[in-house]
Amino acid sequence: MVDTRPLQDVRVLDLSRVLAGPFCTLQLADLGAEVVKIEVPRQGDDSRTFGPFLGTESAYFLSLNRNKKSITLNLKSEEGREIMKQLIPHFDVLVENFRPGTMEKLGLGYEELARLNPKLVYAAVSGFGTTGPDTQKPAYDIVVQGRGGIMSITGEEGGVPTRIGASIGDLAAGLFAAIAILSALMVVRREGKGQKIDIAMLDTQVALLENAIARYTVTGEVPRPLGNRHPSISPFSSFSARDGHLIIAAGNDRLWARLCQVLELPGLVEDERFSDNERRTLNWAELKPLLEAVVQQQTVEYWLERLEQENIPCGRIQGVDQVIQDPQIVARDMIRTLVLKTGEKLSVAGIPYKFSSTSCEQVELPPTLGEHTEGILRELLDFNPEEVAVLQQKCVI
Amino acid sequence: MVDTRPLQDVRVLDLSRVLAGPFCTLQLADLGAEVVKIEVPRQGDDSRTFGPFLGTESAYFLSLNRNKKSITLNLKSEEGREIMKQLIPHFDVLVENFRPGTMEKLGLGYEELARLNPKLVYAAVSGFGTTGPDTQKPAYDIVVQGRGGIMSITGEEGGVPTRIGASIGDLAAGLFAAIAILSALMVVRREGKGQKIDIAMLDTQVALLENAIARYTVTGEVPRPLGNRHPSISPFSSFSARDGHLIIAAGNDRLWARLCQVLELPGLVEDERFSDNERRTLNWAELKPLLEAVVQQQTVEYWLERLEQENIPCGRIQGVDQVIQDPQIVARDMIRTLVLKTGEKLSVAGIPYKFSSTSCEQVELPPTLGEHTEGILRELLDFNPEEVAVLQQKCVI
Repeated sequence: MVDTRPLQDVRVLDLSRVLAGPFCTLQLADLGAEVVKIEVPRQGDDSRTFGPFLGTESAYFLSLNRNKKSITLNLKSEEGREIMKQLIPHFDVLVENFRPGTMEKLGLGYEELARLNPKLVYAAVSGFGTTGPDTQKPAYDIVVQGRGGIMSITGEEGGVPTRIGASIGDLAAGLFAAIAILSALMVVRREGKGQKIDIAMLDTQVALLENAIARYTVTGEVPRPLGNRHPSISPFSSFSARDGHLIIAAGNDRLWARLCQVLELPGLVEDERFSDNERRTLNWAELKPLLEAVVQQQTVEYWLERLEQENIPCGRIQGVDQVIQDPQIVARDMIRTLVLKTGEKLSVAGIPYKFSSTSCEQVELPPTLGEHTEGILRELLDFNPEEVAVLQQKCVI
Repeated sequence: MVDTRPLQDVRVLDLSRVLAGPFCTLQLADLGAEVVKIEVPRQGDDSRTFGPFLGTESAYFLSLNRNKKSITLNLKSEEGREIMKQLIPHFDVLVENFRPGTMEKLGLGYEELARLNPKLVYAAVSGFGTTGPDTQKPAYDIVVQGRGGIMSITGEEGGVPTRIGASIGDLAAGLFAAIAILSALMVVRREGKGQKIDIAMLDTQVALLENAIARYTVTGEVPRPLGNRHPSISPFSSFSARDGHLIIAAGNDRLWARLCQVLELPGLVEDERFSDNERRTLNWAELKPLLEAVVQQQTVEYWLERLEQENIPCGRIQGVDQVIQDPQIVARDMIRTLVLKTGEKLSVAGIPYKFSSTSCEQVELPPTLGEHTEGILRELLDFNPEEVAVLQQKCVI
């Protein structure tokens, strides 16, 4: 029953580097697709040079490229491009995150490749997309986080707009791209026709603004950083305890009454200023210090135990050291260990897709540069070992 | 050519409320699936009561539920559950975000529904998933953001862990769920068999930690908030100008040299302390004030123009008011206007999926509560108007 993987019949040619594209193809690979990375000979994905290193391997690269294969191919050489074209009919999906126009300049644009494989799903992931005035501008994660608005609602209250500590500009683009690719594969299964997908990192930041745009157009107030509190529910925030921070989320009057009991502040329940959620939110500046004064007298552990007894939603703010030991996270297999060929071990995030009758738990080591070049060229294109050796000498592969 | 929509042959029964589930089904709806929300009669999705309001409609609800239909159905009544079971064979996908076990208690668990429709893809989205010690604990966005580690790497340098201003705990779960659902639909197309998907908000937070887990296991240093700077590239940060903040991302020595030119700080290029990226990162505390002293003398506009001339990646940190007028964002159709039946207008995020030969630009108004109840019951289950009227009176629908 669990011997099939959801995307086991999907083959992906992955020309992407560093983060947005590779995070997209990581999803497809974890779901069972055969993902073949095309890398520059003797150099590879830029992220292979990003520290810290485990022996000679980049921990950054390793955490993004499990379950993938790697072949080297020099797309700047005529022969390299020729091999690329020969590969195209064997693949269902192509993913690239070059600046728009790059593939066209190489003679490998979508129109060209679709002639070789009309069923190809071609996904281009870029900073600003293939249309609009800024299509050619360079983009990095922090540039689209800033421009897309999410930083303007993140940060301490009254403080500066703050970057999301994970590269959400890239990660979100990768997830939206994966959704688009799978949808386009549904079209291929239905209509027999591939197409091009154009995903912009900036667009995906706008798509993550939740209700901030609607809030602004209704109220005219520009949303600003609110620290850890919720814009319209209180108490729903972090608090300082004696030895760290914790979260308390008492979203309704019933939970509020119970919270006052746990904190031994019965007077507050009667207090006019805090009599309903709207007033608690309005008068949060007065309320927070009253609660925190009590919370600060005990440890995080103490409060979590008391709050959980009363079924008040609460939790730790965990550092990565705590996350990897969290019993729930461990029970869900969300921390996986890669054992490199050298015997060294590296922890990485697990796979968040849990299916009842297809398996999604396999983790193969990330490939070394060009590990599968010869195998793929022989298997798919019938190259013989001599031909492969010559191409290697010429630095085509 | 552009008259088909990617998921036009997919029908989704959506029992989810508020955010994680509805954000998942929003993706499917925007991609052309027929999404039918099941809502509690006379009450509806909790988020219909979340302010601010446009007339009587919640702006929060409106921004998450376009392109969907709504029927009311009381699952606490025997007749309501019976109708639910009759609907199941007509749908490809079911999405719910109840606490694990709720559907089973109603007699509507996956096993039960799969008997009625073996091809059904059943997606359960919950805070902690259906397994593990904490499966039954209440979870809200801020609880999983805190527990999953992303807050511990977000915030001002040396400051407190900070919540992502959008509810990334819910939004990420919605995106990962959409990917899982589409993958499971590929399995249905291939093998004719549906299955259950179990997505935990907490799991998806771990999946977003990028390389933080790997960095920690290699270096032993717990990643902490770094404000707006990059952990290993400098300058790659925000800066204060005379009238606001801007981002400068000069990721290599060439860009660094050009930046020093633009800022008229030629001495810095020669400065030993800042001679390569590693040293600039190591000595960032010394370097930042030197750069910022110059940046602060002019406006954001002034610097962006100078930096763009030199092709140095840079950008604004935009508020939502600026985002909705950004020429690139507007050119990409990423701000859409809903015109309500009352004539009132609401801006919402556009659709980030851009396809070359299927359309994904249609935006239908979010449904009023139960707007499609009668239509769906008549179309799919052959109910007549009298039967519908009786069910309405009994508050079954």
